[in-house]
Amino acid sequence: MAKLAEFESRTGRRPNILVYLMDDVGWGDLGVYGGGVAVGAPTPNMDALARDGLMLTSAYSQPSSSPTRATLLTGQLPVRHGILRPTLYNEAGGLTDAITLAQLLSDAGYVTQAVGKWHMGENPGSQPQNVGFDDFSGFLSVSDLYTEWRDPYFYPEIVYSEERTEMMREFAFEKYWVHAEKGGTIEQIKEIDIEVSSHLDEYWKDYSIEFIEKMADSDQPFFLYHCTRGAHFDNYPRDEYKGLSPAKQAYKDTIVELDDILGELVEALERTGQLENTLIFIASDNGPEMESWPDSAYSPFRGAKGSTWEGGVRVPAIFYWKGMVEPGRVSDGLFDISDIFNTCLTLAGAADSIPTDRYIDGVDQTSFLLAEEGLSNRKYIYYWLMSYFSAVRLAEYKYVQFAESDSGEGIVNPGGFTGYIMAFPYYHLYNLYLDPKEEHNVSIRKLVFTDLFIEAMQKHIATFREYPPGVNIITGH
Amino acid sequence: MAKLAEFESRTGRRPNILVYLMDDVGWGDLGVYGGGVAVGAPTPNMDALARDGLMLTSAYSQPSSSPTRATLLTGQLPVRHGILRPTLYNEAGGLTDAITLAQLLSDAGYVTQAVGKWHMGENPGSQPQNVGFDDFSGFLSVSDLYTEWRDPYFYPEIVYSEERTEMMREFAFEKYWVHAEKGGTIEQIKEIDIEVSSHLDEYWKDYSIEFIEKMADSDQPFFLYHCTRGAHFDNYPRDEYKGLSPAKQAYKDTIVELDDILGELVEALERTGQLENTLIFIASDNGPEMESWPDSAYSPFRGAKGSTWEGGVRVPAIFYWKGMVEPGRVSDGLFDISDIFNTCLTLAGAADSIPTDRYIDGVDQTSFLLAEEGLSNRKYIYYWLMSYFSAVRLAEYKYVQFAESDSGEGIVNPGGFTGYIMAFPYYHLYNLYLDPKEEHNVSIRKLVFTDLFIEAMQKHIATFREYPPGVNIITGH
Repeated sequence: MAKLAEFESRTGRRPNILVYLMDDVGWGDLGVYGGGVAVGAPTPNMDALARDGLMLTSAYSQPSSSPTRATLLTGQLPVRHGILRPTLYNEAGGLTDAITLAQLLSDAGYVTQAVGKWHMGENPGSQPQNVGFDDFSGFLSVSDLYTEWRDPYFYPEIVYSEERTEMMREFAFEKYWVHAEKGGTIEQIKEIDIEVSSHLDEYWKDYSIEFIEKMADSDQPFFLYHCTRGAHFDNYPRDEYKGLSPAKQAYKDTIVELDDILGELVEALERTGQLENTLIFIASDNGPEMESWPDSAYSPFRGAKGSTWEGGVRVPAIFYWKGMVEPGRVSDGLFDISDIFNTCLTLAGAADSIPTDRYIDGVDQTSFLLAEEGLSNRKYIYYWLMSYFSAVRLAEYKYVQFAESDSGEGIVNPGGFTGYIMAFPYYHLYNLYLDPKEEHNVSIRKLVFTDLFIEAMQKHIATFREYPPGVNIITGH
Repeated sequence: MAKLAEFESRTGRRPNILVYLMDDVGWGDLGVYGGGVAVGAPTPNMDALARDGLMLTSAYSQPSSSPTRATLLTGQLPVRHGILRPTLYNEAGGLTDAITLAQLLSDAGYVTQAVGKWHMGENPGSQPQNVGFDDFSGFLSVSDLYTEWRDPYFYPEIVYSEERTEMMREFAFEKYWVHAEKGGTIEQIKEIDIEVSSHLDEYWKDYSIEFIEKMADSDQPFFLYHCTRGAHFDNYPRDEYKGLSPAKQAYKDTIVELDDILGELVEALERTGQLENTLIFIASDNGPEMESWPDSAYSPFRGAKGSTWEGGVRVPAIFYWKGMVEPGRVSDGLFDISDIFNTCLTLAGAADSIPTDRYIDGVDQTSFLLAEEGLSNRKYIYYWLMSYFSAVRLAEYKYVQFAESDSGEGIVNPGGFTGYIMAFPYYHLYNLYLDPKEEHNVSIRKLVFTDLFIEAMQKHIATFREYPPGVNIITGH
């Protein structure tokens, strides 16, 4: 792209990349997406970046944390990279044979820094310092696994049992905030109890700011992959944030902190003269986790984290790059989190390094971001629900063959980890412009589109014949 | 207020007031409320006014058209002014004994102009020229009543029956776009068939622009009450707008037109040097009408037009007044459409004329609008579902004793005119920050608030003992 070439010749650099990935934050939580003040937690910094950048209304994650994160870093859908659901206590991940964005950027001369939540496996082969990051400071798993069993509100049966407490102490999962350098082994920094958990996002913000300050003097561009602890359950805001949101609830206070942290990172980039050199991508890893309500996000859409309804996978996504991404753009062009892989490599001048020995699902969205009225280069969103090929989106239409129930027999606390698979014997078709909440199946009224979707699905399925995945997939068609 | 006094001494005038009231447009339709591009119909003009003004996230209409309109013009809840539901073919309204905002502003020296939809009764005593407007150009009823029986898609049993077509011709409801001047009788301008209906918003825009231009030379301030035809079903966009929205659907094309029209009205105010002298209020009369889907609005909330769920009554509401309303404000302070009555009279220096012989539900929100960090002067929203005292909102909590079902036995096309009354033997309590979709009744968890609501309800009910309403009310408490 001419604009990118112009940037590089003007600055003599390739752009820095900051990914700010929040946890379990909903499409509807941000002010610019209809939340913010309306839902008791203003997000002025995110709103400002959205208004001064490109705000996406149809950006998609995977249904849960680990799958999304591995998709971002590999450019592959979960059925290809193999991490289909969140990794739990002491579980290995699936990055051992992966080729990651961090590795390729590192190979291309980027300084690669991971900060915060990892959650792609505790095994050494899946740890950040072994998959391309020069440095990592954060935790290997996910917020609740460090604290849930320490909280008598959630686990009286452990907290008030010496035997079970001892069992947890001996359970060999990583209980520490850890640090590691490229190729090394992790060192434990601090055991994460509830009090420490409250402060993690603050510590990690400081770590990233130090990194940003350090990089101001570097000739190398950087890739900063900053993943917050919040606002994943269970949120225990630190004292400064307790009750700071109008809603005064833990989740909402955490949103306020996450917004402040983003503001501070941007401020650090500006202060160190790097703001114009840095593409910032802000997103969430999935939709609201509703089984933990009220410690939950908000999405106007149907369904929740864990499902492939829009509520589970349609996430806030903002690109900001001062002087390079035209301000004030809002687009409903399709964007998949896997596109970050291809787009970042293109921005880094390393598109040639995109693997050809495996299928990459991401597409390069550089022109979507940088052209003044850029359009998405993606035609389809493929929704996978664990190993089920759930749905396809094409333009405003979503064709669904498998979905998760969000109510019904035996479901009293609905959420994306509670429903059952509904296999539609025919299929459902939703118009997401006219029916954003997916209530009106119009398949029988829009038959002319059927073949478009069947063809799209068959082409997608064909990629699995050419590159057989490591998991059994249920393709429907 | 000092700021208002300063305005008047600086300009030597009282402010003009433009109410731009859209029909059946949802909270979620506007870009700034999370719609716009995301739902296939961008609203750049409304978004710009919201960003440059005060955007309300907790503004409430009544559940349907006629009740809302009469509440705006009388400052009274429907159970007081008596119009509980939309007036239908040839029905009288209830304004004969009303004291309207238009009348009081007229008495205070304002030029009062009503344009567009009226829908508060076809009887002369309820017609605009007899309740305070100097001039009216529009229709007396509501969009679908002019066209539904002419459309073979909806009414083949009339269109293809000569006898029934004749019956409709003889049915003595007003089928014309009409004009009237103060105290006079209506004159028929044009019979409204489908083709004419397509153009009404264009004609009415021209009428309002002419009025704005004429007023530029006047010493008198004005009250322009501009009520659009759109986007009430059935929408038949005129050729220039057909397929103009990304969604290319009639409702969405109409939203694009309504946004353009607002832009043109603002442009006319600016061109004639009146923008700084004019408070603009933009709102909708109720939430989405879902029985007519896909010719329907969008709201992220539960329920629809006709109900007292948030989806029925929480509407977009924007105040814009260049130089007077601080730009960039977003507030979830409570606002009821009845507050327009008191607020406009205060702005006009005519607060003394607010009737004392009847109960006025509106409160003066001048300071909310004009103070830099103004807060709402309203503590409660009282929700009435026809004659049922449905609910009370206090801060982020909504206490519900009667509500309308939005699913269940026999309901296959859910919407606010289809459900049944659910009387909760105890009550439901929703936290609208944590649960904007009203899915989680937390009454049993938040008992300490019970008395606050009971007290609020009893005080409200007491006003009906002091000022007995003309309709039987079901108060629950």
